[in-house]
Amino acid sequence: MSGTLYGLGVGPGDPELLTLKAHRILKAARVVAYPAPDSGESFARSIVAQYLSPRQVEIPIIVPMRLERFPAKAVYDEVSVTIASHLDTGQDVVVLCEGDPFFYGSFMYVYERLAGSHPCEIVPGISSLMASGAVLGRPLAARNDLVTVIPAPLDDGKILSQLEQADAIAFIKVGRHLSRIRGLIEKAGLLDAAAYLERVTLDNQRLMPLSRAGDDTAPYFSMILIYKGGDDWISALPIEGKSQ
Amino acid sequence: MSGTLYGLGVGPGDPELLTLKAHRILKAARVVAYPAPDSGESFARSIVAQYLSPRQVEIPIIVPMRLERFPAKAVYDEVSVTIASHLDTGQDVVVLCEGDPFFYGSFMYVYERLAGSHPCEIVPGISSLMASGAVLGRPLAARNDLVTVIPAPLDDGKILSQLEQADAIAFIKVGRHLSRIRGLIEKAGLLDAAAYLERVTLDNQRLMPLSRAGDDTAPYFSMILIYKGGDDWISALPIEGKSQ
Repeated sequence: MSGTLYGLGVGPGDPELLTLKAHRILKAARVVAYPAPDSGESFARSIVAQYLSPRQVEIPIIVPMRLERFPAKAVYDEVSVTIASHLDTGQDVVVLCEGDPFFYGSFMYVYERLAGSHPCEIVPGISSLMASGAVLGRPLAARNDLVTVIPAPLDDGKILSQLEQADAIAFIKVGRHLSRIRGLIEKAGLLDAAAYLERVTLDNQRLMPLSRAGDDTAPYFSMILIYKGGDDWISALPIEGKSQ
Repeated sequence: MSGTLYGLGVGPGDPELLTLKAHRILKAARVVAYPAPDSGESFARSIVAQYLSPRQVEIPIIVPMRLERFPAKAVYDEVSVTIASHLDTGQDVVVLCEGDPFFYGSFMYVYERLAGSHPCEIVPGISSLMASGAVLGRPLAARNDLVTVIPAPLDDGKILSQLEQADAIAFIKVGRHLSRIRGLIEKAGLLDAAAYLERVTLDNQRLMPLSRAGDDTAPYFSMILIYKGGDDWISALPIEGKSQ
């Protein structure tokens, strides 16, 4: 009998933002896989490091940054074979997922290879988007707000249209697009309603008005939130450090 | 010294989808408030009932359904005075929030009355939106998908524009708008890509293709999810009951 493949949301960074369910499944698992960079620590693993035990088998899924499509495909092909070999012996396998497994996560590449042949269960997690409202002290959405989540790599026309139509806008995957996105927000007259966030809920979290965020490339785990009509409190945001 | 007001996300319904942090704060709290209907059980309280203890003081926030604006205002004015009286004796007060406190929650009405005068902390929760992808077995968003969350009461023009532009669309607050929203989705040619969900993660959860959802009013805790290009697996959804 096959073990179950779990896509386990580990939340935005604070280890206490794991769900009770994810915690229970993680503690019981014999095999734990997670995305990892080619050098340095896995962020997903670091979030739950304190809940792991030395008797667990670990499978790092190493996808080098800026990889072409086909080598990445090869990485997921190979790791899926490894994971399947554990499932086929009846062991459950947990794949750790930053935030939520099904909200812009890389877990889908493992899932699409194994869900047809093995039992799978997704344990939802707190996305960094949901944590953003909490750390900013402002509701992400209220009443009948139209909320749009925009991956920063999208083209200018699509972004400008959403800046006009939505009430609350969250940009994800900001990274090297920071300067262009800020330009579009300024063009839409919304710069004073925009907050910049980095590594929410972690000790090195940074929050500030977007107008003060500088021109550099942002880290991958950064977001921009826009609340229309939010000018007053945005300008009162501290320039950096935990504001909570 | 004032106690802290906690807005505590209790997740979509499964009591195990509470975070470790929310669980810890809830167990330690002496005063627990929650939204409640004028008759019957509080949904937020029912999710965490097993974690409550008889020594905790409970404050139901009773907002009758279909209330006019000013009586609802009076309810929040009054309960905020009660909550403040506990905070002022140094007691922490936890307000239970279905899903996430800052994602379309009513907690903001308490928060806006007390955040200026008392320390507040928001503990994010799993929204029913995040749980939807998990129970459907489909990523809510992938790669560079543009995701839009649409409250069903919005007007037709705004909805049709988003149906055209977004890659993934979630309707919330469907309730009595079910028939109108389905008409708009059909007009946009997306009926076969739409799933209907009720009470996700609860024992009486229902999932089905929107085309099979019937014409009645949906319960308040229902959603419609549209994945463009999702026709094949939508039509394979069971008509009701847990599909996980």
